[in-house]
Amino acid sequence: MQRLFFNKSKNLSIINIRFKLNFNTDYKNGNRKNVIPNTKIQDCQAIDLSTISSKDLGKLTVIEGPPNIPFHIKRVFYLHDIPPEKSRGSHAHKELHQLLICINGSFDVALDDGSSKKIVHLNALTVGLHIPPMIWAEELNFKPNTICLVLASDFYDELDYYRNYDDFLAAKLIARSIDSHI
Amino acid sequence: MQRLFFNKSKNLSIINIRFKLNFNTDYKNGNRKNVIPNTKIQDCQAIDLSTISSKDLGKLTVIEGPPNIPFHIKRVFYLHDIPPEKSRGSHAHKELHQLLICINGSFDVALDDGSSKKIVHLNALTVGLHIPPMIWAEELNFKPNTICLVLASDFYDELDYYRNYDDFLAAKLIARSIDSHI
Repeated sequence: MQRLFFNKSKNLSIINIRFKLNFNTDYKNGNRKNVIPNTKIQDCQAIDLSTISSKDLGKLTVIEGPPNIPFHIKRVFYLHDIPPEKSRGSHAHKELHQLLICINGSFDVALDDGSSKKIVHLNALTVGLHIPPMIWAEELNFKPNTICLVLASDFYDELDYYRNYDDFLAAKLIARSIDSHI
Repeated sequence: MQRLFFNKSKNLSIINIRFKLNFNTDYKNGNRKNVIPNTKIQDCQAIDLSTISSKDLGKLTVIEGPPNIPFHIKRVFYLHDIPPEKSRGSHAHKELHQLLICINGSFDVALDDGSSKKIVHLNALTVGLHIPPMIWAEELNFKPNTICLVLASDFYDELDYYRNYDDFLAAKLIARSIDSHI
């Protein structure tokens, strides 16, 4: 399994914005239109966040949305007081984009696009990991006092989740199949 | 000067949403329409944030927008690595709403509506201090390693700032005058 470490000293590339910011969503009869982006593991990118440094006054890190990150922010949440041996996540989103930022401490993010896997280590509050839709993600190996800030592209919607890994794999197969016929 | 302390043990009241969420803004010729809300010091409220606790898996604190906080989130920034003897802020916004959260450490927020003042101490990541428009605010007394997360109702716009205190006071006088004649 590929293991990448991101920290303040690395000059990380800005993400290539390849996703549509507004997906075609239809809740008719409680179902969404089946618009499944065929995202790949390399679409999960670490983004250097815009930080204004002043030796006298400290630092200010700002996240506004495009072009700095590939979505508009609608919801914010943070994980905290996580027992070190526990993991969080273990699900994928159909349409939601997320940016994960390690505000304090450190943790790993295990990413899985259904055929490739990668682990990213986050330990700097000036780096955000963009997780696009249709990527299975799990957060683990939390150091004590770790705080994981998540910026999300939409409000909470249980219908947007794949919580069963087999369902996620089946949807990825469909997405790849559609993609290969376009 | 009144000094209030907010921490996890207090059951703080949910804010009374009295502000318009969308202000009437016009950038014709680079100027805004002069819609100045006559906010008062008591409109700055500490809000208990929605936290989902699980003894086994830690905690998740979520901020989506109304009705939990009185605005939709468009921009996120955080102050960090602030020297303890330094202060930040010292300005007011014409239309911007902000929610300040002490993610780590502690700090004070000095609030001023032009006639009344108050200092709020923030030291818990489950409490957000709502600062509505037309309140002069300064953050100070930062403990080492303090992180101040700010959720804002709009993108950055230098035209939205009062950075001169006398200009702010003059605008407050106008706002109070209009308010007293309605």
